[in-house]
Amino acid sequence: MGYRYEIRLSGSGGQGLILIGIILAEAIGLYEGLHVVQTQSYGPEARGGASKSEIVVSDEEIDYPKPQKLDLLLAMNQASCDLYYRDLKEDGKLLVDATFVSQVPTNRAIRIPFTKLARERLGREIVANIVALGAISELIDLVSFKSLEWALLGRVPKGTEEINKKALRLGRRVAKGALKEMKGKEIENYTIDESSL
Amino acid sequence: MGYRYEIRLSGSGGQGLILIGIILAEAIGLYEGLHVVQTQSYGPEARGGASKSEIVVSDEEIDYPKPQKLDLLLAMNQASCDLYYRDLKEDGKLLVDATFVSQVPTNRAIRIPFTKLARERLGREIVANIVALGAISELIDLVSFKSLEWALLGRVPKGTEEINKKALRLGRRVAKGALKEMKGKEIENYTIDESSL
Repeated sequence: MGYRYEIRLSGSGGQGLILIGIILAEAIGLYEGLHVVQTQSYGPEARGGASKSEIVVSDEEIDYPKPQKLDLLLAMNQASCDLYYRDLKEDGKLLVDATFVSQVPTNRAIRIPFTKLARERLGREIVANIVALGAISELIDLVSFKSLEWALLGRVPKGTEEINKKALRLGRRVAKGALKEMKGKEIENYTIDESSL
Repeated sequence: MGYRYEIRLSGSGGQGLILIGIILAEAIGLYEGLHVVQTQSYGPEARGGASKSEIVVSDEEIDYPKPQKLDLLLAMNQASCDLYYRDLKEDGKLLVDATFVSQVPTNRAIRIPFTKLARERLGREIVANIVALGAISELIDLVSFKSLEWALLGRVPKGTEEINKKALRLGRRVAKGALKEMKGKEIENYTIDESSL
């Protein structure tokens, strides 16, 4: 069996997780030449405030597109963090939107207030998902930033390209800083150097 | 094993197949209470002008989200019709955009010129995918038109609701007429009764 990397993007219905799932999958699949399957599931089990969008990446054709053990979990709300944390690999990465997730089940979580950042730095809460996508690009070694930006521009509505590019760059920068700072420390209150944005 | 229904929406990259896949999956999963998995695949095998978006529906939890034998194939271009026809069940339904698919491998195909209709009747070629979605609603017995319209309105950009609703209704009406007319006949040149639109 070849290389396999599994990502779940979770949160509530309105947080734009399908969109960033598709952008990420296209960036990795179309521009990086890897095999990618991107999935949404609906049904009774999706109730209770947690919705998800999944990505499986491989260097081989993917026969079984359902994630087994996650390498990366993005949780944009508390319900999805609580529900899906158990599916993470032992050394898997947990990335949470600290705006909404106050209790994390591990001290290895990467806590970034995506929604707060989107609101306060970009004036548009709705691009919180793109800020998270930028952060993810820094945490995985599957896609170049350029490919991701390219895929992003192909998927966002006309006229919103600039704000989305800014959101993506903001996410990357914050994740970069967070990774440097953390080494086991809590980073919910991690303060971004204004001059670097 | 319970009930299972498999759909593939195929065509070229710019034809909006992911969008209608998501709308259809949400309509069936969120509003009809069935289990639905909706999938996009990327990779070397997707080259050659054919791209796809897939939906598996079941009354049970879906363990294997990859389609085995399709119940319905939508082909919006010739390449995807040629490539994916072999995956159709013996009694599966083939629905093609007759604007771009001139050669069909069976005389049981349902041939509707979605793109031509979108251009000529609605003045917007870009909603051809929504016209096709409306037609699909008439061919499957999984979702009410109301649920589909509801899911549609949650996914299209603000300000485009009316044209999209018109496109959905147009597709349904044309498919209804086509099903009545066909009974084995070719319907590429099926003429829509203007007064009925």
